[in-house]
Amino acid sequence: MDYKQIFDYARELDTILILNGGEGQIDKTFFYLTQAESGIFEGSALIVSQDGMKIITSELEEESARSTGLEVIVAKGREDFNRIIRKSLENVNSVGINYSAISLGMYKDLLKVIPDKEFIDVSNSIIESRKMKNDNELAKLRQAAKIGSEIYEEVIQSLKEGMTEYELASKIVYEMMNAGASGPSFSTIVGFGPSSAIPHYSPSDRKLKKGDFVLTDYGALYKGYCSDITRTAVFGRADSKQKEMYNIVKEAQTESMKIIREDVNGKDVDQVARNIIDSTQYKGKFIHSLGHGLGLDVHDHPALARNYDFTLKDRMVVTVEPGIYVTKYGGVRIEDDVVVGKNGFEKITSGPSELLEIS
Amino acid sequence: MDYKQIFDYARELDTILILNGGEGQIDKTFFYLTQAESGIFEGSALIVSQDGMKIITSELEEESARSTGLEVIVAKGREDFNRIIRKSLENVNSVGINYSAISLGMYKDLLKVIPDKEFIDVSNSIIESRKMKNDNELAKLRQAAKIGSEIYEEVIQSLKEGMTEYELASKIVYEMMNAGASGPSFSTIVGFGPSSAIPHYSPSDRKLKKGDFVLTDYGALYKGYCSDITRTAVFGRADSKQKEMYNIVKEAQTESMKIIREDVNGKDVDQVARNIIDSTQYKGKFIHSLGHGLGLDVHDHPALARNYDFTLKDRMVVTVEPGIYVTKYGGVRIEDDVVVGKNGFEKITSGPSELLEIS
Repeated sequence: MDYKQIFDYARELDTILILNGGEGQIDKTFFYLTQAESGIFEGSALIVSQDGMKIITSELEEESARSTGLEVIVAKGREDFNRIIRKSLENVNSVGINYSAISLGMYKDLLKVIPDKEFIDVSNSIIESRKMKNDNELAKLRQAAKIGSEIYEEVIQSLKEGMTEYELASKIVYEMMNAGASGPSFSTIVGFGPSSAIPHYSPSDRKLKKGDFVLTDYGALYKGYCSDITRTAVFGRADSKQKEMYNIVKEAQTESMKIIREDVNGKDVDQVARNIIDSTQYKGKFIHSLGHGLGLDVHDHPALARNYDFTLKDRMVVTVEPGIYVTKYGGVRIEDDVVVGKNGFEKITSGPSELLEIS
Repeated sequence: MDYKQIFDYARELDTILILNGGEGQIDKTFFYLTQAESGIFEGSALIVSQDGMKIITSELEEESARSTGLEVIVAKGREDFNRIIRKSLENVNSVGINYSAISLGMYKDLLKVIPDKEFIDVSNSIIESRKMKNDNELAKLRQAAKIGSEIYEEVIQSLKEGMTEYELASKIVYEMMNAGASGPSFSTIVGFGPSSAIPHYSPSDRKLKKGDFVLTDYGALYKGYCSDITRTAVFGRADSKQKEMYNIVKEAQTESMKIIREDVNGKDVDQVARNIIDSTQYKGKFIHSLGHGLGLDVHDHPALARNYDFTLKDRMVVTVEPGIYVTKYGGVRIEDDVVVGKNGFEKITSGPSELLEIS
């Protein structure tokens, strides 16, 4: 990781403080910069300067911190932590902080610890840096995508009449972890029949019936990096409406993906998919954006969306996931992950191109 | 949910705004108040007033939002969302916000959307309210604890020489989800042998050998609520040092748990366990706090810790998890979940009381 690129859009600064709160307030930028592969690092800090990085953490995380090879300072309690922060920043006037990750409460507390500093928002510089993946990150993203793709065959062959959405979701997570994922990258979605019409559905004890759509949206977490894959199949024989919905979504995905390359605007990619769906009787039934960035967060920057004016660059990783949702009937979504290239794209997930009918 | 209790420590207010950002910036208070059992609700808001609650969300989450029975407003994009927020708050001068969840960036954006309001920090009121669980929440927590407890037998019987930590972690998650969990409540820890000495370890491809400690720290997520359980066993016959470490940790857990009841200070509970461990040759090897609150977050308020002066109350749920860690040798941790009562405690997890030797 060339950590200095986080200063690229904040050149007036020479020190950035990355601060983690409790669970749910961990700044993934901590993992981005340290590339730590274990540990949680609640209540820890990373001080980034032009000279290097140092981790301030508790005894609990000491071994994980040391495994990064970076300088580590172990704080004995909160008072000591604050003292180390003060000491580390004593010769600095302006400190960059990540406005998009630090909570207002943590910020107010920080003002008490170091009241004499000016704080500069470096969230944009961090976002810009994290959008473009280096080779090491791409290797982890490809592996996360490979795990997610390869387990689908095993998963779909396990379908049995009467099985619940819970059971299929557990099978998916099991297969991913058994293939080397540290866990699911987000809460697994499995929707049978009408449930597939709810994009952010949570699995239930609904039982699989012949003729149901089987929508699975899941991803693997591999060394901190995420994949995100959606497949839609039919249990039994697909009827003509199911085939029609699938083929429209597939076409929307194929055609929109084709235009992905450096310098293309994300909203134009969204528009290609949306135009295809909106030219059919399913007009207006594609109720979300076409895609989103993928990295340490499963919903990372940038987005491929109507209202998001954004130019794609080489080494960005995005999902492409059009869908059609017919309330109380069912939905189809197909989602793959791609790396944006100078002259095109690399699809890092793989899967069936035709609608699978599982009997 | 008697949502009005979040005003208990903010009685001068009549409106609270709960605002979700993207992934990693979801305020669990949104789920606490709405008790929504599906949906993710990124970029959504909840307006809480003395008259009731309303959800402002996107079309993507509309069905999940409506299933709560609350008033729902669907925003068409960010501009429309901001317009609805402005309109909903037009007759309000002071708005309560959760400083501990809203990011500094979201706050700065909010200042632009409603520049004419005074903002009041209601994070303490929310924390106080969320600490005490009502019957509905306790039922979910008990079920999460039951799932996590009951799968251990199956998990531990699957141990085989040469299996990897990954394999065992995947088995744990599979069994929990198959038993009705929507997923793991945090990233599963499995440490064999020396790996068990790292409290926040991430599983690797280390292979199980005879004589290894097998430390598993995992939890089930059930309708949004978490359990958190640690068990330590030995693969093969335990030697005298392993038995000694286990028995000390077990005693520390049993004795500290005994004093849990309303009006006891959490740091005194921690002290009981710490005194027991520190009176042995393992003095100083219990390198973390005794426990933490459990709820929608797996590390919820309050804590049982040396430096945390806090009085337990009826209906709080906490973990009790002493441990001994000997670097490069191994570690033992035993963790159970308890509900604090007026006259004692209810242990909601169950498990073996003796050190299991698995052959």
